[in-house]
Order: sequence, then structure tokens, then C-alpha cells
Amino acid sequence: MSKNLLVTINDPADLRRLPKSDLPIIAQELRSFIIDIVAAKEGHLGASLGVIELTIALHYVFNTPIDQLVWDVGHQAYGHKILTGRRDIFHTNRDLGGISGFPKRSESVYDTFGTGHSSTSISAALGMAMASSLKKEDRKHIAVVGDASIASGMAFEALNHAGVSGADLLVVLNDNAIGIDPSVGALKDYLTKTKSGKETGRDNIFESLNFDYSGPVDGHDLPSLLKELERQKDLKGPRLLHVRTVKGKGLKQAEIDQVRYHAPGKFDKITGEIPASDTSKLPPKFQDVFGHTIVELARANEKIVGITPAMPTGSSMKIMMEAIPDRAFDVGIAEQHAVTLAAGMATQGLVPFCNVYSTFLQRAYDQVIHDVALQKLPVIFCLDRAGIVGQDGATHHGVFDLAYLNCIPDMIIAAPMDAVEMRNIMFTASQGLDSPIAIRYPRGRGKILNWQQAFTPIEIGSSRLLKKGKGIAVISIGPIGTMIEDLLEKENLEVTHLDVRFLKPIDSKALEAIFNTHDHIITIEDGTVVGGLGSVVCDLAFAKAYRGTIHKLGMPDAFIEHGPTADLHKIAGIDAEAVLKLIKKLN
Amino acid sequence: MSKNLLVTINDPADLRRLPKSDLPIIAQELRSFIIDIVAAKEGHLGASLGVIELTIALHYVFNTPIDQLVWDVGHQAYGHKILTGRRDIFHTNRDLGGISGFPKRSESVYDTFGTGHSSTSISAALGMAMASSLKKEDRKHIAVVGDASIASGMAFEALNHAGVSGADLLVVLNDNAIGIDPSVGALKDYLTKTKSGKETGRDNIFESLNFDYSGPVDGHDLPSLLKELERQKDLKGPRLLHVRTVKGKGLKQAEIDQVRYHAPGKFDKITGEIPASDTSKLPPKFQDVFGHTIVELARANEKIVGITPAMPTGSSMKIMMEAIPDRAFDVGIAEQHAVTLAAGMATQGLVPFCNVYSTFLQRAYDQVIHDVALQKLPVIFCLDRAGIVGQDGATHHGVFDLAYLNCIPDMIIAAPMDAVEMRNIMFTASQGLDSPIAIRYPRGRGKILNWQQAFTPIEIGSSRLLKKGKGIAVISIGPIGTMIEDLLEKENLEVTHLDVRFLKPIDSKALEAIFNTHDHIITIEDGTVVGGLGSVVCDLAFAKAYRGTIHKLGMPDAFIEHGPTADLHKIAGIDAEAVLKLIKKLN
Repeated sequence: MSKNLLVTINDPADLRRLPKSDLPIIAQELRSFIIDIVAAKEGHLGASLGVIELTIALHYVFNTPIDQLVWDVGHQAYGHKILTGRRDIFHTNRDLGGISGFPKRSESVYDTFGTGHSSTSISAALGMAMASSLKKEDRKHIAVVGDASIASGMAFEALNHAGVSGADLLVVLNDNAIGIDPSVGALKDYLTKTKSGKETGRDNIFESLNFDYSGPVDGHDLPSLLKELERQKDLKGPRLLHVRTVKGKGLKQAEIDQVRYHAPGKFDKITGEIPASDTSKLPPKFQDVFGHTIVELARANEKIVGITPAMPTGSSMKIMMEAIPDRAFDVGIAEQHAVTLAAGMATQGLVPFCNVYSTFLQRAYDQVIHDVALQKLPVIFCLDRAGIVGQDGATHHGVFDLAYLNCIPDMIIAAPMDAVEMRNIMFTASQGLDSPIAIRYPRGRGKILNWQQAFTPIEIGSSRLLKKGKGIAVISIGPIGTMIEDLLEKENLEVTHLDVRFLKPIDSKALEAIFNTHDHIITIEDGTVVGGLGSVVCDLAFAKAYRGTIHKLGMPDAFIEHGPTADLHKIAGIDAEAVLKLIKKLN
Repeated sequence: MSKNLLVTINDPADLRRLPKSDLPIIAQELRSFIIDIVAAKEGHLGASLGVIELTIALHYVFNTPIDQLVWDVGHQAYGHKILTGRRDIFHTNRDLGGISGFPKRSESVYDTFGTGHSSTSISAALGMAMASSLKKEDRKHIAVVGDASIASGMAFEALNHAGVSGADLLVVLNDNAIGIDPSVGALKDYLTKTKSGKETGRDNIFESLNFDYSGPVDGHDLPSLLKELERQKDLKGPRLLHVRTVKGKGLKQAEIDQVRYHAPGKFDKITGEIPASDTSKLPPKFQDVFGHTIVELARANEKIVGITPAMPTGSSMKIMMEAIPDRAFDVGIAEQHAVTLAAGMATQGLVPFCNVYSTFLQRAYDQVIHDVALQKLPVIFCLDRAGIVGQDGATHHGVFDLAYLNCIPDMIIAAPMDAVEMRNIMFTASQGLDSPIAIRYPRGRGKILNWQQAFTPIEIGSSRLLKKGKGIAVISIGPIGTMIEDLLEKENLEVTHLDVRFLKPIDSKALEAIFNTHDHIITIEDGTVVGGLGSVVCDLAFAKAYRGTIHKLGMPDAFIEHGPTADLHKIAGIDAEAVLKLIKKLN
């Protein structure tokens, strides 16, 4: 069946020149192409496999890029990228300097709106549609959004506006009943019923919002898809097309184990098998330290509950959801709700651990301020994926949290240096605080094997003097302190090292002692230098009339692209080599 | 009819001892009590008048405070406050040291959850209900939420979760078809149809989300309300009761002009008339400078559009909505959507002015970072109500924006000192920038009468040296600079005064010149001292090896309560007297 058609498609216009009968061949070749490359290079697999036919049909029927297509989240956009001129560079996907794993405006005119975080596509496409209407342009606007993403509040706001806007907007609901983890919530229940034929008729939720609802259509049946999209193309106004797809479609294992094959790492491109690897002797991932520790704490304290907004697997909250299902909750892609739900629980004396990726807590910033901190409710925020996250890139780096949390009164902000410290601060927080706390930790593994030690409470706001040197002091926060510790030891440097542990309250006594006895201070953090540890130290240094120098190491005031974390740390100058160079210069 | 019953109600338990036949008398007395006090003391009027019967019925039927009642937003909670032990201190409403204009946990056990920002009540009440379920307590949980608030994304997230939670939660939809301005959106359309009987049956939007829907019920008919609430009290699971009310009910003018009587200021308690006042000779409100200026700019540039999330009157976007209706949009209480809609429009070359109160932009923080700044889309954010807002208090002060925006790469942050500067920066931004800009300005009036001057472009990042002195330099941002200017002139002080105008990019050249020639620097801002202008100056001072002192004046790192703005400025030490004292001390 292979006709090597895909290599002839350098642009959707090439696709549109093919007869419809060739499109299933394109689908097959596109699927193989993605599997071949992702098997070797890693990346997001299942989402793109699920929308192969939809991607082809959309570009075939609509006149992209005049007609504008927005992919929500963007995990599913690999096929789109390959069909829109990036086939030859697709192997650079997520590499440093390579193409992004998400749609990106600077990369292609076909990427009409950069995505990464969920549920933005309807707002963006509506904005484009309203602009076209004002400019009297004849263009179509399509947002492709998954069933997990459309259940987020932001998407609802956009539907609610679009429904009365009269805008010429097609929302394609890509319903595969799963985001990264299986979808949850009442809307998901409703959609499931719709698909099974139990719930039909014009009063569905989308029609209630003035959308013209069609479907569900089989998203892997190209003739049906093409026919329906052609019909949609001639319609006007806000409309929603419900498409049923299977995440991972075309690779058996990916269809069966959809969670694992969302981003499976390397796998066998023929069999789909993921090579077995023994990680039992590696230090654990920070997320698993969280997952195991919350279960340990919750078994001893029945007031502890866990909340995750749609990240049970990624956050390892799943461990608690399996062990203590009645006290661990996945609320869906609903960070705002997750935070205020936790606040509500805290008013009743529960001890909620609300686990949100650093970058996604941006979605609930007001709730952290207005519902939690303002009421001094002792919600325990566990911010996973804090700092540079690597290949997911600019949309996902958790580099702003220290800065945006520090200005909130009554927030405690902790960044443990290692897994033992992380367990101890989780333990301390669970014992009861009189204000909220954010505990930030990075993606990936720590360095400690012997991490499951008995709990020791940590005094809030206390730092650790890890090494007493002279002349120069390095003040670190978070796991980057381990790098400093190793460096000072390896190079046998007589440099002071303070692990502040808490950005807020900062250990001003320990800092003052350093101001009084050192000429040079280096601050280092895996986060933006604007408003983080470095800024806090500068502020305090002026208050204490410190007259030495301060060198702030951290992420520069710029959006950081994708690439391996170590490379990005090196580029930012927060790697061991850069610190050593600076110390030598100051000495 | 007056039986002076209200004075006997010190607690809802007192209310519950009355026969139902006395409740209409309580309603009448409660209405009069509110009108009497708000007429003289100012405050939010219409919302509370609209829920008098509902408030009485809820406290009569449910066993508060064991049964827990959450008031969304809280504008409507005056009746609740008066019936729950605060009748005698209600005259201190919104005063410095008096009771808050919103529900507040520290004020009463009946205020189960502090509100102020909209759409939090369902999440909070669900959290409480889930906690009660875990603790095996027999309590009821009720969220009272308006039709404008329930259309916000956060409320949808909560409904979507509650619908599958099995929680014992009653959502009372207080549908008066208006928030502060008339409600908008598809859901509002749907509700309007429901009320008119055009759209009925079990497939409504709430039933789609697994809620047991009842209503609509006349919210001013006490017997019907009591009967329905008694029925609801014996039900279990998530349910929504749709109640129709009239905002301003019982005061004719407030019913007719609902927008004006939301918070009418002083009025005649008998006639309802608002005394005429000639403001034509006062300097304009900053919001009106915005409203008139955007129209002026938009008439000259057809790419300019205006977006407000539910604040057409408060932001004065209404002026553009009336003058150029096809290019000014009220999207409802949907800050997240508003920002990304603006981003979508900006991709098409439009010039969107997105006007959001400073405190409400917290709701769209991720969208500012992820959808706007990351893509360098030149959206123009106009942040009204920045700084201390006065009587609305801790939930509404716009004191965090400088800090939370400063860490975002590529954001331009401007705070014009006066109306002329504000017009010029709006003009400059509308001419086209290559990144987003936030223009922050306070609630209330400026000082300049002759404000409508011809536009002059402002160089982005440039400061203004308003006075050259020696020894001491005051660096100000925003309208507080006018106070400094007046003070230096009045006291004839030889002190340098720099109006930085932009927090980002900061005018480092001008600051360096000050570092080189002054021994003492005072920074002053109407915002938190943590991460704002003072911090930026400290950071730069270390980078430039400044060896003098820096004194950071601004809001302390604490939530600021309600009270007159001048009083709150004084308490924070950013009034003229405090600055003068500091200058004298340094001299």
C-alpha cells in the first residue's frame, strides 16, 4: 500500500491536490512517520496518533493557512507540523535548537497560535474570527480541543461568549475520553452518554450555549470526516463538531495503555514495546517522593486529603488515589477550582495537599491570593515541575513561581534541596501551620538513594549552613544546592554555602551573619532572577547595609526555549562550571 | 405594619423562633434598615435589596451556622450580616476598623468563606461538603451565586466537579440578569429563556452536569421560597435551585436604574434620589480618562478594539461601547477569556485594549504570561483600580500587580503620574509596540483639570526628572508622584525627584545617574514593597555598586484592610507627612 506519498507533501496545498482516495495512504504513512521518529527520539505519541485522520481532513477541506486552525494544548500537533512544511526537520522535535513540541507562531504561519497550556484555543480562535469579521475577511476559524481541555473553566468562558458573538467559529471537540489521564467530571459523563446514544436531542450543553452541535462522528473514518467538514465549511456562526477518536490509534499498545503512551519515552517502533529498565537502584523522582510520602502521612493523619487538577500520574498523586481513594481527588483541568476547593476543605480542619505543576499554578494565582492566603488557610501547595523542565520548553518551565508567590503576604515558600528535606517539610506542614505553604521541587530524579528516612520537623524559615568558608558565600535554594555542595567539595573550595530552604520567611538572621563576614555573595536559583532569591537577598542586604558584592545567578529575564535541562542550565550560567568560574574570579 | 421585630433578631436562631407569618415584616424592616444606613454611609445597595427574602428564608430553613452558607462575591450579604449578630455595628460597614463590606471569616462564624472576587462560592462550598462527608457530619452546604458569577469559568469547573462528586450541595442561582452591569453571554440567554418558559425540560445545562435542577422560583415570594427550600433541605446530592430576583427590590429607583444603584453613594432614603452634584469642574476620574481617550484613539485607528470582562461602567469602557459598539466588547466575568481573546485579536493585527481591574488580572495571570507575553503579542492592558482602592478592602486592593508583572519577560509596565501622561502612554501604545504593555492607574480622580491635551509619544522606558536636588532622591512611580512634587515644592526641599514612569524596562541610565550623585534614595509606590519599584531599585543599585542608603516606601507585606484610601496610605507611611519626616531625618 505504501506509495511514498507523504514525501510529496511539503504544504497542505500539496495535500489538497491529491484525490480523496489517496488520503488513507497519507494517514498510514503519517502514522508510521510519527511512530518511527518518536520511538527513537521520544516525545508525545498518543495524542497525535489519535488525530491523524482529523488533521488530514482539516487541512484537506479548509484552506489553511488562510483558514486558521488552533490546536488546543498542542500535544496532538505532530501530524499538523509534518504536513505543514516541517517533515524534514521533524526529527529535531524538542531538541535544543530544534522545532518545538508544541505549535509555535515563530515556527510556521500554520501555527496560528502558540499553545502548551490547555483550553486556550477557543478564546484565541474566537479573537481571530472576530478580527476577520471586523476586517471583512472571508476566512474560517477552527479550534480543535480535547474533551479534557474543554471542561476547563477558560474554555467554558470562551464558549459562553462565542455563543452570543455570532462569530464564524468551528470548535472541533476531539473526544477520546482522556487528557493525559482519563477525563473526569460531569461533562465527561454527559459526552460519554452522548456517544452511547443515551443522551441526544437539541438541549445538549453546547446547544444551551447557542452552539450548533453536530456529531458524534467517527474521527478515524476519513470519508465521514471529510463529508462533515465540507458541510461545516459552508455553515456560519458558532458550531461544535463532536468527533470521537481513540488516543494512540494505530499502535496497539498505545491504544491499550493510553496513559503510558501519552509520552512513552523510547519504544520499539515495530512492536510498540517499551524496553524494560530497572530503575529500582536509581534515586527516586521527586514526584514519587511526594506520592509515597503523602500516603505515609495520610495513613497517620486522617485529616490529610490530596487534590490534583488532572495530573494524577504526572504528580504521582495516583499513589494516594489507589491507596486511599476516598481522600484523594482528581478534579480535572481545573486549577482554579482545585485551589479554592482546597481552601474550602481547609476551613473545615482538613489538611489539603494541593499538587499543581509550577507553571499551571499560574492558572490559579488569584485563588492562591484571594481564597487561601488572604484567609490564612493552611493549604499545602506542592509545586511539581518547578524550575527548568527541559524539552517541553517555554510554555512549561516553572521559573516564575518564586517571584509571583513571594509578593503574597503570609505565604510560606519552601524549596527543599533533596528528597529527605522534602519529606520533612511535607511532614512539618502536615502537622499544622497557621498559613499556607508552597513546596516547590523539580521534574526528574534527586540524588539520594536512602531517602525514606524517619520524619524530622523543620523550623519554618530556618536555613542550613552547609559549609563555613570565608570571603565568598553561595546562597542557594532548592536542589541546585546539591550541585553547589558537590562542587565545593570536589574543588575543595573554602566557600560558605547556605541552603536557605525558605524563600519566605527568609532566614534574615543567617543572611545577616553572612553579610557581616563576607565580601562576595553569590545567589543561585532554578528560576527567574527577577523577584526571586537574588532579589530578596539584595533587598535585605540594603536593609542591613551590606557593602560587598552580590552576584545573582538564575534564569535570565527572558522566555527560555526547550532543550535538555542540563543544557539550559548551562546556557543560563547556573551550571557547576559557571559557578566555579565566578568563584575563581571573585577569589 | 412595623412591629420592631428586627431588633429582636440577634442571631438566626431568633429568626427561627418567629412564625412564618412574621417573616414579611422582617423583610420590610431589614430592607428599611439597609436603605437607611447605606443612604447615609454609602456602600453596595442593589444586590442586598434583591436577596432580602432569600436571606431570611435561607437562615429560617437551614440550621446556620451548622449548615454552611457561602455568599458568592458578597455584595449581597448585608442582610445576612444584619441577621447574624452585626445589626448594631452595621453602621460601621466599610469604615476603617469597622465591619467589612464582604463576608469575612474573622468577623463571624456565619461568614463561612470570605468573598469579594466572584465565582468562588461553589468550589468553597463543595470543599466544605466533601469535608463534612469525610468527617461523617450531618450538615448542609449552600452556595448562593448570581447569574453573572456562575457564568465565569471557575464556577463551571466547580459545577463540573460537583456533578460527579455526590456531594450534598445546594447551589442557589440568584438570577437577576445583572452583575454590576447587565449579564451577557450564552448562558444568560439560556436562563432568560428558561424564565420565560420558552426552554424547559430535563436537558438543561445544569442537568447536563448531573445537577438536580429546580425552578425558577420567585425570589420575593417568601411562602414559595420557604416551601422550596424546605423541600431542598431533605434532598441529597448536587442540586441547583434557580431563583428569580430583582436587583434593588423595594426601592423604586434602584429597581429602575440597577447599574447606578449597585453602589449609589449617598442618596435620599425616602425618595431614593441621588443628590445632583456638579463634577464638571473636578479633575476627571482616571477611568474616564481611559474611556474618553480610547474613543479618541479608536476613531483615528480602526484597528483599535476594547475588551472588558464585565466592567463596562466601572472601567468606563461603556463610553466606547456606546460610541463604537462594533469594536468594544463586554465578555462577562471572564478575565481568562478576555486576555486570550485579546491575544487572538492581536495575532490578526488588531490593537486590543484589554481593561481589567488590577486585582482581577490575578485571575488571568497565566494567560498574560502564556498567551500574550510569551508570544510577544502587543496587547495593551489597562489596569484600573491599581493600588489601594479604599473601602472595598483586602480583596480588592490592586497592590500586587507591579510585583507579579515584573517577573514576566517582555512585559512593559507603565504607571503614569497623571492624566496627561496616561493619555500619552495610551497613545504611544496604540501606535504599535513589539510586546505587551500594562498601564496601571488608580481608582478615583487625578489632579489635572486641563487633561485633554494633544498627544505626545513617550519613549518606552524613559523616566522624567521632575526636580534636581542633592543628597536625597525620591524615585516615584504613578500618581503618588504628584504628592511628592507638591510636597517638595510646598516645603521648598532641595531633593531630587524622578518619576520613573516605567517599572519595566526601568530607566537604568537615569537611576545610575542618581546612584552616582546621591547618598540617600527613597522609593515610593502605591503597591507592595515586595518585588515592586523598591526591589527593582535595590537590585540595580547592587549591580551598579551604589553605596548609599535605600528606603523603600510602599504597602507592607501584609493584606491591607478596608478604609479611606488616604487613611490607608497614612498607615502604610506613604503619605506626605511620612515622606517629609523621612527626608528631614536623612538630611
